[in-house]
Amino acid sequence: MESPYRYLSQIVQPSDLHRLTDKELQEVADEVRNAILDNVSKTGGHLSSNLGTVELTVAMYAAYSVPPDKVIWDTGHQAYPHKLLTGRLDRFETLRKYKGLSGFLKRDEHELDVFGAGHAGTAISAALGFAASRDLLGTKEKVIAVTGDAAIASGMSWEALNHAGEMQSDFAVVLNDNRMSIAPNVGALTNYLSKLRSRPQLQSLARRARTVVEKMPDPVTRMAAGFRHGITHYLAPHETGTIFEEIGFEYIGPVDGHDLPTLLEVFRNIRELNFPVFVHAITVKGKGYPVAEEDARKWHGVIPFDLESNEMVKAAGPVTFTQAFGDAAIEAADADPKVVAITAAMPDGTGLTKFQKAYPGRYFDTGIAEQHAVTFAAGMAANGMKPFCAIYSTFLQRGFDQVLHDVCIQNLPVRFFLDRAGLVGDDGPTHHGAFDISFLSLIPNIVLLAPRDTTELGEMCRWMAGFDEHPTAVRYPRGSSDDRLPESRSPIALGRAEVLRVAKDRDDAVTLCALGSMVGEAWAAAQALEGLGIEATVINARFTKPIDAETICDSVRQTGRLITIEENVQPGGFGEMVRRVVQEAGLGHCPHTVLAIPDQFVEHGAQALIRRDCGLCADHIVKEAEQLVNARVLH
Amino acid sequence: MESPYRYLSQIVQPSDLHRLTDKELQEVADEVRNAILDNVSKTGGHLSSNLGTVELTVAMYAAYSVPPDKVIWDTGHQAYPHKLLTGRLDRFETLRKYKGLSGFLKRDEHELDVFGAGHAGTAISAALGFAASRDLLGTKEKVIAVTGDAAIASGMSWEALNHAGEMQSDFAVVLNDNRMSIAPNVGALTNYLSKLRSRPQLQSLARRARTVVEKMPDPVTRMAAGFRHGITHYLAPHETGTIFEEIGFEYIGPVDGHDLPTLLEVFRNIRELNFPVFVHAITVKGKGYPVAEEDARKWHGVIPFDLESNEMVKAAGPVTFTQAFGDAAIEAADADPKVVAITAAMPDGTGLTKFQKAYPGRYFDTGIAEQHAVTFAAGMAANGMKPFCAIYSTFLQRGFDQVLHDVCIQNLPVRFFLDRAGLVGDDGPTHHGAFDISFLSLIPNIVLLAPRDTTELGEMCRWMAGFDEHPTAVRYPRGSSDDRLPESRSPIALGRAEVLRVAKDRDDAVTLCALGSMVGEAWAAAQALEGLGIEATVINARFTKPIDAETICDSVRQTGRLITIEENVQPGGFGEMVRRVVQEAGLGHCPHTVLAIPDQFVEHGAQALIRRDCGLCADHIVKEAEQLVNARVLH
Repeated sequence: MESPYRYLSQIVQPSDLHRLTDKELQEVADEVRNAILDNVSKTGGHLSSNLGTVELTVAMYAAYSVPPDKVIWDTGHQAYPHKLLTGRLDRFETLRKYKGLSGFLKRDEHELDVFGAGHAGTAISAALGFAASRDLLGTKEKVIAVTGDAAIASGMSWEALNHAGEMQSDFAVVLNDNRMSIAPNVGALTNYLSKLRSRPQLQSLARRARTVVEKMPDPVTRMAAGFRHGITHYLAPHETGTIFEEIGFEYIGPVDGHDLPTLLEVFRNIRELNFPVFVHAITVKGKGYPVAEEDARKWHGVIPFDLESNEMVKAAGPVTFTQAFGDAAIEAADADPKVVAITAAMPDGTGLTKFQKAYPGRYFDTGIAEQHAVTFAAGMAANGMKPFCAIYSTFLQRGFDQVLHDVCIQNLPVRFFLDRAGLVGDDGPTHHGAFDISFLSLIPNIVLLAPRDTTELGEMCRWMAGFDEHPTAVRYPRGSSDDRLPESRSPIALGRAEVLRVAKDRDDAVTLCALGSMVGEAWAAAQALEGLGIEATVINARFTKPIDAETICDSVRQTGRLITIEENVQPGGFGEMVRRVVQEAGLGHCPHTVLAIPDQFVEHGAQALIRRDCGLCADHIVKEAEQLVNARVLH
Repeated sequence: MESPYRYLSQIVQPSDLHRLTDKELQEVADEVRNAILDNVSKTGGHLSSNLGTVELTVAMYAAYSVPPDKVIWDTGHQAYPHKLLTGRLDRFETLRKYKGLSGFLKRDEHELDVFGAGHAGTAISAALGFAASRDLLGTKEKVIAVTGDAAIASGMSWEALNHAGEMQSDFAVVLNDNRMSIAPNVGALTNYLSKLRSRPQLQSLARRARTVVEKMPDPVTRMAAGFRHGITHYLAPHETGTIFEEIGFEYIGPVDGHDLPTLLEVFRNIRELNFPVFVHAITVKGKGYPVAEEDARKWHGVIPFDLESNEMVKAAGPVTFTQAFGDAAIEAADADPKVVAITAAMPDGTGLTKFQKAYPGRYFDTGIAEQHAVTFAAGMAANGMKPFCAIYSTFLQRGFDQVLHDVCIQNLPVRFFLDRAGLVGDDGPTHHGAFDISFLSLIPNIVLLAPRDTTELGEMCRWMAGFDEHPTAVRYPRGSSDDRLPESRSPIALGRAEVLRVAKDRDDAVTLCALGSMVGEAWAAAQALEGLGIEATVINARFTKPIDAETICDSVRQTGRLITIEENVQPGGFGEMVRRVVQEAGLGHCPHTVLAIPDQFVEHGAQALIRRDCGLCADHIVKEAEQLVNARVLH
């Protein structure tokens, strides 16, 4: 069967684009767009942002020599065209699937994924590292960082621009400005970029200028001294003084990021420059797929959808943790005017969209700026407010020092809500919330919780709203609750666990002490163990700091065996903290199996699959319990 | 006896300045300067930066009403005048001493230390939190953040400016621009600020404009619509378009930060404005103390010195860990052209000053930008270089996500050198390197070392230079080596500990397994225990990840008792990791005492004193060992 991608199927590396005419490159671009639509409608993934970078990528790869030239992408949301132009068309249907292509850039997936991407704001730093080492090694390849208008507002992008502007290396930053990150973008820089966008677009100037350029002498002459500002000035002769120029870049733009001929001209010219250049390309999220152009936010990250009807069929599932938090935050704000909500560019993902509508004045979106978000929350808490700071587990890593230095040293009662804790599934290793228990528990003064289900999350939110003595953080997984658990509950109390089930018999009993998302698995394991003649006590730990040593040790004294289960890495995790209190209670001789994410990075794949790979499921708990009981260590 | 500070001794709060004439305020400023010199020459501390903010602070506190107005200082290096104007003159001689005044801002030291300070770049975020909550609470106080030209280049300052510019609250940022942080400042923003500094200084414009202003109607009219840009424009009518204006601030400056009359005028005017204002004040580090003006870097953080001879008497001590690293880095660079060195604004503190001189092209100073520094290093490693990334333990907290996400997920062989690990002494809780073992050990792929002395640090540097399989980090304390240790050594090998001494007898023996700075204490304890009839095996752990389970467990099997000693917090630390391997080896019944920094923040004071408070000294190890042996737990 002939490939539906006449040109694209022939392209296994970017240099294959060099044989094509500009008109054929337009065909390639159209095929890339179709390939994204065809595949992502089946696999799900990041749709609208990737539809926005089609022409940009084709133009860049046609103009540059990749390799040896290096393009470093910021996040993966914009890099599907890159994947398609680097020989991954055939495997594209495995996108974000278990053992399939990653949704992000990944060094061990392809040699042209020269630097991994996941969290926003890393590309300029990494690319500058490539450029600086190239200068030392004496090679001559070009280095380009492609970043987005949301990522560039992150602190680390600014730090990197500041360094690059000083270094004055041969280096280009391409700003893919689609006017939003996932939700509409915020911040003064966004307003500033809008101001730049209102300037005459480059292509009209370019066309006017083309005749001038064509009359100019050969490129070598053009590049000679005096032409330093040439390309900017012939393209935008009256515009200077952008922020980017002030810090040492040549600013080129704005340019229509879907106008392939102009992009080709711009990149072919820029490739000849050997100083820091900043290209400002205006793109449209969802470009070429009208419903996505209209509602880019809805079509940012998608589940499979129907290309005819444009419908995403979402199974109506039980309430998610995200929704439960969103409702609890509004309830807290209803009850106390000092409650405010803070997000770092994730109103939808964290469940705060409804809060924003209900209390617009008490809602703060800092953009992709977790460091600032945390210390801003600390400032508010120091002034008597009750900030609810909702940040994904993985992104709070960016605010680690601020949690420690600004919140916890001062013991300020900021409330942290960490969605996507544990294994998130398709997004993979850069996005798993696999570390928060470890990196928060090491900090003095903080109180750390994890709910067994969405109802308990609501109760914990209420408890946290009323708790002013310490900073608090609650972590909860992506998705919805485990419905296997009993409905009856005890009230939340500081440092107190909940015993869900007590083993009747001593000789072949075991204590299953589980945290948050793993309580349901422990419960299911206990039922299964009963059938095998093994009695299990099930403890819902609730707090990982402070830990309920009394409840846990009392149970271990009874059963003589312990399995702890958590969806967090083993080092510094819940199990290790339990190990300490158990040993300090003189129970170090009781066998203790720690089930946790192993000390390695976990690949992407459906949540259930990768949890199983890590041994974080009822079946595996049963197996470990059987082993402990059969070993019959004397105690 | 009459106070030598006629005015200052009468000032217990900023509002006391309001009774004074502008001429008397000048006297106050002179007395503040003298008080700093008199006291810091005796106590040591941060001298030159604090001499630079004398007039700025006097003017601000004379113009504003503090309280209720709030001034949030960035770092403490500039806040001694603030301490002196808030009633702390009498206690100033206790500065940075054990149980004395902190060298930084501290909420529990004084109510006008409204937000703590330590790490650079936090003030704008925190102040914006104060301003936003003020707006919600409906109070009317003014909020000012005072930051420095080094701090403002940090990513989080940029994030906060970006948010503030959008929020358009009543908010002022004062940039104390002294043209350097500790070492001369770097980065494109620094060059940009120089450009701004070259503009005509405000005071000449102000004087020209004063007659105009005096002819203007009353302040209320002046503040009416239309005067929005008034103060800028009457002071600097032809200057616009700064970066700070582009992102939503009114830029006012540059102004001479030592011209008290002009500063008073500027701040009295600004206090009437109710939108974001950015004041750019030019100050001189060391102002008023000529030798410090000449060499501000030398006089940044000082030991006690003689005000007559201007001499700091530094005891010629043994080689420090900092020097040992500096020498080892040069040696590595001599041997391998791929070795490069990266610092984040700390060339002196990290020992890289000599490297910079020896290999200027292979030395990179990113400024206060740890996030970028780490990912820049990752980019270089991805391009085949061997980056030596030297960052204080406490400041690497800022780069935590980058270590995890950019270095370790990709398993890139960046080499981290963490000086000031453990308790640093006088700088206190914001600066103790108390957490690095915990926050690094939780990350997969990293290899983590700690040397027992400076010679071993050199050997570890050599070993790390040749080790490309994983990222590596070595942590070492402030100060110099313990000279009690034996000279003979075994070579460094991945994950292998060194046994320094083996207990002869079993029944009353103990294993002392110590890490880095604590090996000397363990050694001394072992000698003392010998005198008490207790035999001790001493293990120099060397690696905390991977841990040498075999060596440790073999010894515990012999002695039956274990004490681990580390200068890191207990949660997630070395002792907890040892506890795991010991229990996994079936030795969970053997008593194990974990000596570590307790799970709380440690105050400032001389290193030896606060180590002792934490039980991290030979005497305490002896006591714990005696207790273990006397308990004679059966095994």
